Amino acid sequence: MKARVHVMLKTGVLDPQGAAVQHALGALGFAGVNEVRQGKVIELDLADGTSEATINEMCEKLLANTVIEGYSVELL
Amino acid sequence: MKARVHVMLKTGVLDPQGAAVQHALGALGFAGVNEVRQGKVIELDLADGTSEATINEMCEKLLANTVIEGYSVELL
Repeated sequence: MKARVHVMLKTGVLDPQGAAVQHALGALGFAGVNEVRQGKVIELDLADGTSEATINEMCEKLLANTVIEGYSVELL
Repeated sequence: MKARVHVMLKTGVLDPQGAAVQHALGALGFAGVNEVRQGKVIELDLADGTSEATINEMCEKLLANTVIEGYSVELL
């Protein structure tokens, strides 16, 4: 089975990567870019029957820094 | 309007970040992790009416390195 995990900085946490991308898009002539936030996507190929609870545990323990990042799990 | 762009290394391109995550999950005691691929997710807040073609152009010019990375655009 496959799962996809999104890890994004929480709202209110400064995102310098996103700000750099926003600035660069403006410099390239793309108008109307109001905000950019950049995060990680992690695609996992897991043994069949792995529960969503296990994947959440992986996020809590390793994949996300839950002090500043939020995550969402999507089973594919 | 909002759009989400996924940027992943193409199949066959070595993904050392993903391999490190896979190894670390094993070391933490999570069994059955067959493969991990890590990529970027970029959330854009754009002016209303921005076309998908424009977002594809942003990907080609800045967001993805199309030599080694593929991207997908999702309008939210």
